[in-house]
Amino acid sequence: MEHHQNHSQPGLNLATKHHLPKVLTIRPPTVFKSVESDFSQKFQLVKPGESQLPLDQFLATHAHDVRAMIASAATPVNSDLLRHLPSLKCIVTSSAGIDRIDLQECRRRGIAIANAGTVFSAVVADTAVALLIDVLRRVVAADRYVRGGNWPVKGDYPLGSKLGGKRVGIVGLGSVGMEVAKRLEAFGCTISYNSRKEKPSVSFPFYSNVCELATNCDILILCCALNDQTHHMINKEVLLALGKEGVIVNVARGAVIDEKELVRFLVQGDISGAGLDVFENEPEVPRELFALDNVVLSPHRAVFTEESTRDCVDLMFANLEAFFSNKPLLSLVKNQ
Amino acid sequence: MEHHQNHSQPGLNLATKHHLPKVLTIRPPTVFKSVESDFSQKFQLVKPGESQLPLDQFLATHAHDVRAMIASAATPVNSDLLRHLPSLKCIVTSSAGIDRIDLQECRRRGIAIANAGTVFSAVVADTAVALLIDVLRRVVAADRYVRGGNWPVKGDYPLGSKLGGKRVGIVGLGSVGMEVAKRLEAFGCTISYNSRKEKPSVSFPFYSNVCELATNCDILILCCALNDQTHHMINKEVLLALGKEGVIVNVARGAVIDEKELVRFLVQGDISGAGLDVFENEPEVPRELFALDNVVLSPHRAVFTEESTRDCVDLMFANLEAFFSNKPLLSLVKNQ
Repeated sequence: MEHHQNHSQPGLNLATKHHLPKVLTIRPPTVFKSVESDFSQKFQLVKPGESQLPLDQFLATHAHDVRAMIASAATPVNSDLLRHLPSLKCIVTSSAGIDRIDLQECRRRGIAIANAGTVFSAVVADTAVALLIDVLRRVVAADRYVRGGNWPVKGDYPLGSKLGGKRVGIVGLGSVGMEVAKRLEAFGCTISYNSRKEKPSVSFPFYSNVCELATNCDILILCCALNDQTHHMINKEVLLALGKEGVIVNVARGAVIDEKELVRFLVQGDISGAGLDVFENEPEVPRELFALDNVVLSPHRAVFTEESTRDCVDLMFANLEAFFSNKPLLSLVKNQ
Repeated sequence: MEHHQNHSQPGLNLATKHHLPKVLTIRPPTVFKSVESDFSQKFQLVKPGESQLPLDQFLATHAHDVRAMIASAATPVNSDLLRHLPSLKCIVTSSAGIDRIDLQECRRRGIAIANAGTVFSAVVADTAVALLIDVLRRVVAADRYVRGGNWPVKGDYPLGSKLGGKRVGIVGLGSVGMEVAKRLEAFGCTISYNSRKEKPSVSFPFYSNVCELATNCDILILCCALNDQTHHMINKEVLLALGKEGVIVNVARGAVIDEKELVRFLVQGDISGAGLDVFENEPEVPRELFALDNVVLSPHRAVFTEESTRDCVDLMFANLEAFFSNKPLLSLVKNQ
């Protein structure tokens, strides 16, 4: 829809603007900056970040009639915040995950949520594959080896491990998991999965128990949502089941893994390696990992490409337009 | 064939060994060490590296009747060496590339060459894909960013670029190139290629001119053999055609690129990035590249996994057995 090119009407005056529907933006996604002027042609952006007032005072003064808000993975939309927004009926988030939103309270109040849908699925899957090969083949550590001037001095870098033929267990076979599976089949991996329920349309073997999946796989790739059921789902028992030769890739949320256990397993060599895009206490990363060559550390970048963020911003715009036109949201999250 | 497990006969005595066919091993591949004892059950290994004599003297004394030799990418089999091996009829190399072998002299003398065939194609293609995503998404630089403690201090790492939708030009559509194409189609890339000749069995668009291919692509992946036709094939003109947004991945041989030009283009930002597994003067890597975040440097590791080197050693063994049984070589190189 390319609104950020077409909707530019710099002449729009303040009087008109005040007739535009209000949209609250608390800590909007970074990418939002470049398109803010486009959004403000269609919506009156309410921005507590630009006010001197403390958030709750600002909201009490300016947000009682706000019906829609923009959120991101960095915005906790908790009951505290929701209490200050009595008219809120729609949250549009730039994140695929909705773990920072109080779903129960939204359900109770009938607040609709639109997330990033599937706009990030492909780039997240790309990241998962890159992290996986990087771990198996020690690409990042080998680059360090070259830059450190070691190649001419210390000789050949050690052998890696081949991706083809590996048994990959995908935890969470949503749109990201399916994209990961599609890619890894082209590399000659065999796929199985764990998910809330078995997917009738999918022929990959299903394990209802993640520990059993780990026992039967060389690699686990975490693509699931973070919720009460998946919090610390990858615990000591699962890591033991994965075993010394096992590799884990996490493009889901940090807290899906018991991070302290993971660090212990990695440091003691009780699993073989990990590619991590997410961590329990971002932007903090356990410092024990910094010294390990069998780990690739990515600063929660799986979704962030120019192309996918543009798609995401387009989707957010379209969701807000739909909401204010009483049309169905394009990427409505099921929240029952 | 798993000879390294099954052929072990430690009781074989010296008298018997002297009846085994001689196989010369000059600088054998590193992986050879672990299987040498298996080979020496079937072949009498002639090892100049373990003698005090200079190579030419050693060969004059011990190699006049040698009919087969093991080579690797690190062994130049030039006319000088071949002169010392008057009985040589078979070279079995652990490398897919045969650029270190004097093909003309082999042709003249009727020396057969068996290379690594396709045993490395999958792992080389895996490396190409990993290097490509790593460059587009700055995975290696982002890992450095995290390990340097920058994430909590400097905030979000910059946006990457999405692989899906990119136009990828494969230079050299042999078995490696086909494996790369198979993988990248699963990521949503569109493929075209340059090769000595158009392949009738392939539906990807063919460009007879590599410059034209570069003009019509976002990414070039080099998978061709190094020979007189491909030496410095990627020159200033091709890099200009690829353009400022272009990315290049090299899993072929360093000298396929004019490396000085490539470094200049990268340093000046005249192409967007590069993933390099090979270099013109290995193990030397141009130091100007060490400071660049848009470059991934791999110390010629594309073929080196435990699985693929095991396959390669099995193939070498089978080729030697075939040669000494007057059977056709399993991975005979066409050398006309």
